[in-house]
Amino acid sequence: MNKPLITPRTLKGFRDYLPSAMIPREQLIETAKSVYRSYGFSPIDTPALEYTEVLTGKGGEESDKQMFRFEQGNRDVAMRFDLTVPFARFSAQNINELGTPFKRYHVGTVWRGENPQKGRYREFVQCDFDTIGTKSNAADIETLFIIHDLMLKIGFTDFKIRINNRMILNGLLQLHNLESQSAAVLRALDKLAKSSPEAVIQEMQEQGGLTQQQAEQILALMTAQGTTAEILDSLESQLKGNERGTQGVLNLRELFTAVERAGIPAERVVLDTSIARGLDYYTGTIYETFLDQMPGIGSVCSGGRYDNLAELFTTQELPGVGASLGLDRLLAAMQELNLLSEVSTPAPILVTQMDAAFTPEYLRLGRDLRQAGLNVEVYPDTKAIKKQFKYANRHGFKIVIVAGSDEFENQLWQVKDMQAGTQTAVKEEELLDVIQKILA
Amino acid sequence: MNKPLITPRTLKGFRDYLPSAMIPREQLIETAKSVYRSYGFSPIDTPALEYTEVLTGKGGEESDKQMFRFEQGNRDVAMRFDLTVPFARFSAQNINELGTPFKRYHVGTVWRGENPQKGRYREFVQCDFDTIGTKSNAADIETLFIIHDLMLKIGFTDFKIRINNRMILNGLLQLHNLESQSAAVLRALDKLAKSSPEAVIQEMQEQGGLTQQQAEQILALMTAQGTTAEILDSLESQLKGNERGTQGVLNLRELFTAVERAGIPAERVVLDTSIARGLDYYTGTIYETFLDQMPGIGSVCSGGRYDNLAELFTTQELPGVGASLGLDRLLAAMQELNLLSEVSTPAPILVTQMDAAFTPEYLRLGRDLRQAGLNVEVYPDTKAIKKQFKYANRHGFKIVIVAGSDEFENQLWQVKDMQAGTQTAVKEEELLDVIQKILA
Repeated sequence: MNKPLITPRTLKGFRDYLPSAMIPREQLIETAKSVYRSYGFSPIDTPALEYTEVLTGKGGEESDKQMFRFEQGNRDVAMRFDLTVPFARFSAQNINELGTPFKRYHVGTVWRGENPQKGRYREFVQCDFDTIGTKSNAADIETLFIIHDLMLKIGFTDFKIRINNRMILNGLLQLHNLESQSAAVLRALDKLAKSSPEAVIQEMQEQGGLTQQQAEQILALMTAQGTTAEILDSLESQLKGNERGTQGVLNLRELFTAVERAGIPAERVVLDTSIARGLDYYTGTIYETFLDQMPGIGSVCSGGRYDNLAELFTTQELPGVGASLGLDRLLAAMQELNLLSEVSTPAPILVTQMDAAFTPEYLRLGRDLRQAGLNVEVYPDTKAIKKQFKYANRHGFKIVIVAGSDEFENQLWQVKDMQAGTQTAVKEEELLDVIQKILA
Repeated sequence: MNKPLITPRTLKGFRDYLPSAMIPREQLIETAKSVYRSYGFSPIDTPALEYTEVLTGKGGEESDKQMFRFEQGNRDVAMRFDLTVPFARFSAQNINELGTPFKRYHVGTVWRGENPQKGRYREFVQCDFDTIGTKSNAADIETLFIIHDLMLKIGFTDFKIRINNRMILNGLLQLHNLESQSAAVLRALDKLAKSSPEAVIQEMQEQGGLTQQQAEQILALMTAQGTTAEILDSLESQLKGNERGTQGVLNLRELFTAVERAGIPAERVVLDTSIARGLDYYTGTIYETFLDQMPGIGSVCSGGRYDNLAELFTTQELPGVGASLGLDRLLAAMQELNLLSEVSTPAPILVTQMDAAFTPEYLRLGRDLRQAGLNVEVYPDTKAIKKQFKYANRHGFKIVIVAGSDEFENQLWQVKDMQAGTQTAVKEEELLDVIQKILA
């Protein structure tokens, strides 16, 4: 070749996943899918590219600006920047065939041309599940169950799912004839974590046109303290006479009853009237999930109920509820908490090759062990055994199997337990037992 | 909303996957991954977007023209059109960190702006596995084992993996000092299935400059008949004195020995000297896989050995061997052969809701059954039971569980076997047994 070499590099904000990063990632995605499936959610997929008009105007000006958008054969097309807008388009297009209620999960890559920062990329995977076509609170409760069971299955026991219901705040605004100020009030309340109560009250007055008393009352409701029962009783009396707010309290009561009936530890599900989840989009139950050991990384699984998924595309009303697992955030937390194993192979067993004359035997053994349900790699070359052990160490194999002409003559396999450092010679009929003991 | 509705539609050549299509697709991908992992292959991923210069010039003029290519912040970028070129870039960039041998699988979406036809799309998923950094024939044999075990695990028993080795043809060309004509000869030979032997011989003469005798000899070698042992013996004698060709025969001999030792039925692995797999890229063992019942759809899993994966990006030589599962083709075949189940839910059990007062109980039951390892959907609303059964039929649930106030009073669940049409009232402690009997 006389051509100059092309520099191998990835685009800014994009990344390769090497095995050590991809193995836990794939496991996490598979865990999420298995939990979604266990609740009867079905997988779907949609194209990476959509007509630009399908994607614009829903996510707000910022997402519009961040879209990877281009001309393709006279069509104005763009890469999806989330899975919600494509799901809205998908539902409007296919709901008659699908029927309601419709429960789907969608794991897919999305692209945003935002400025890359630490931990933020232009390409990332979203992991959403939603139930649409029903207003039933049972779907809201199930969404909570799913988040809970998902966290458990991933390996966490110390976490809190914070729950609120937008109907409460909206009911209170309605009681005060302040419904049209909802967006400004939400914006102000979203600053609660970072600003003083006084500043939030002031913003509600200045931006929302509330009186000081109204602003104080809303803030009091959003920062209610006490047991779940106490808070619910207090909310109920404050919202007396308002249908929406009262329904919100009822739905929360039913949710906490269901949590108790299901035997989910009470400390994992917390009523937190202060969470608002910025987006005006949510209209009912809302969810945020925090790790007890790392609250600072923010919510790792969030979502909520909305009134109408696909109003940009169809007149058919599609209310729904769902949530999204924060894959990157969760993986970063698991790494920090040493919950990820440090292996770069999906197989715990390496069969080495000492003598090229026996290649078919090494390969045969590997295959027989696989048929017993084990993941087994056969080293492809008959390099120095030291090199093959170095390879085993580098990748984190737990067991290395060795045999040279002596072993073949005596019909033995040498089995090395890499962690214990011990080696045993065993007949093939005992091999599976020995391996299973080491792996146990 | 006063804005006009946006028409919900997908771009030409792109498609939504509804649950009935996505469920078997996801299962097939998961099966492939589990087989790859069982052989010690690790997952990787690369970006959907690459610098255009990384993608061009490798796949040939046609792929260059078909690329989705655009400007992004003054960068010339394009969407990947296969997984091989990104893997070459990835390997050149990361091989020092990864070490060799390196075994990876990659399941990823690729995009080609070709004219959509029946069964051809502009967006599709590839499912590749490769072993790089070794010239060992053990890796070639293992590639065959993987294809075999993958087909079995997917559910096929009647298939043929056709094997050849490019070294044989190349050795013969070398013997005749015709190495430089290799591309023209391959192009002619690729027409064997559609043209007469005479036409192929003529093309080799006209396009490759071969004598009639040379062309006839090559054609005779490519269409050798007989048992595997007979063909190998004949090839060995024809290639005497040529190192490369002789090595090719040796490698094939070792492969067939290994197949026998592993107990793989001989009829599933066929030596077929006529397959050439067009691409000049392959240099050793080549693989094609045909379904006995549907040979017409072409090879469903193909690949081969190559000398140097990443020569465009690095001076480091990376020989390898791998193959790719034809996902869409295989799914189409499975559909045709009625191997796909007709369900649109991943859960076999539906818990209906008759009485809203018991919502927490229905949800609790669902969760308890899930903890016993079952996939269970709870119908979200307390609609007429007839509607809920209609939903169950539509989606293919096998068991429907019903309970109203009578049942709750008597602590019973009604279990309906949807296929048998029978219904039994059981106590909760017997529920799991009854369900497992129906599902068995």
